[in-house]
Amino acid sequence: MPYVDTFDAIRGRRAIKKFDSTYKMSTDDIKSLMELTILSPTSYNQQNWRFIIVTDQDVKDRISIAARGQAQPKDGSLVIVLCGNTNAWNQDPKRYWRNNTPEKQELVKTNLAKKYIDNPQARRDEVFRSCGFAAQTIMLAAKQMGLDTCPMMGFEYDQLAEIIHLPEDHVIAMMLVVGKRAEDAIERGGQLPLDEVVFENSF
Amino acid sequence: MPYVDTFDAIRGRRAIKKFDSTYKMSTDDIKSLMELTILSPTSYNQQNWRFIIVTDQDVKDRISIAARGQAQPKDGSLVIVLCGNTNAWNQDPKRYWRNNTPEKQELVKTNLAKKYIDNPQARRDEVFRSCGFAAQTIMLAAKQMGLDTCPMMGFEYDQLAEIIHLPEDHVIAMMLVVGKRAEDAIERGGQLPLDEVVFENSF
Repeated sequence: MPYVDTFDAIRGRRAIKKFDSTYKMSTDDIKSLMELTILSPTSYNQQNWRFIIVTDQDVKDRISIAARGQAQPKDGSLVIVLCGNTNAWNQDPKRYWRNNTPEKQELVKTNLAKKYIDNPQARRDEVFRSCGFAAQTIMLAAKQMGLDTCPMMGFEYDQLAEIIHLPEDHVIAMMLVVGKRAEDAIERGGQLPLDEVVFENSF
Repeated sequence: MPYVDTFDAIRGRRAIKKFDSTYKMSTDDIKSLMELTILSPTSYNQQNWRFIIVTDQDVKDRISIAARGQAQPKDGSLVIVLCGNTNAWNQDPKRYWRNNTPEKQELVKTNLAKKYIDNPQARRDEVFRSCGFAAQTIMLAAKQMGLDTCPMMGFEYDQLAEIIHLPEDHVIAMMLVVGKRAEDAIERGGQLPLDEVVFENSF
């Protein structure tokens, strides 16, 4: 496996549109990638993300249709549907801190309930935040594996939900396609200058 | 600057609670970090993120108070408040694709409007997704700079919004503290086994 500098991975990551449909990731590579992914942070370590990893060609073909005909899911080696469990905060949450003291476990349980019990918006925000961290981990780790990715946010939500049997209290945050690039990405669209998006001390 | 393997950065990233308050990042380091950050993806390249970078000690002290007394903002060298502009999709969006054809620019403008005009939830989801990508980029890039980070999602929202003069159509997604660690992180809380969060082909 090549040794890829973190800065180079960040700079080299681009949304690839054409994947080599003959390339298949090994089961070990997929496992390594997911093991790295779950080292990303989540609020209160609630690990609310859920990942559907799709390598079955028939399922990938159906996902391409749900993605309005885009070819990346069917051509890429691996499709990852990043979802969030909006009830993770309330599902035996002490286990998220089982390596810590019982007092810490109780405190986390109380704080999670306080934050989410009456706040469905906060539960949904947490899905997108956690999946955002995890997605960027996947995109950068893939670079070190000599692979590329395409983040996909445009798809028929209900259609994709049906394909993956999405539970009612889960939300799909996005998809990622991972594979071997068949064509380089086009030039970056038009990055805003730093001073339009970065402000010192306040807006 | 050390050469840090992407996998090592992912594995080594931990939420640091105690920062060395005497360490100050250089202006160049902060600029490099933000230049890497804005290479993270956003949906339709809308670059809806906005970053408040705080190095002023007085502002950092006030942010620590807004963070319910937690010391990381006041002790860390740099606080980054990651916000999203929920109207980025509608603010001269053709510029996000200015390196592409006029046809592509028109298409993106139309698609952005279709997705967001009647959907405030989608505009908010985009804030958390984009800021999630960017935050993980910062956390991993910091590792290569020999620095550490602490992601912070718990703070008095209105108090922080006032400190940074948050515009009405912007949302705070989270904060990150960047600096030199004074103490190692505690053991990971209790990671779920891979088979509880990763599913093959469907739930």
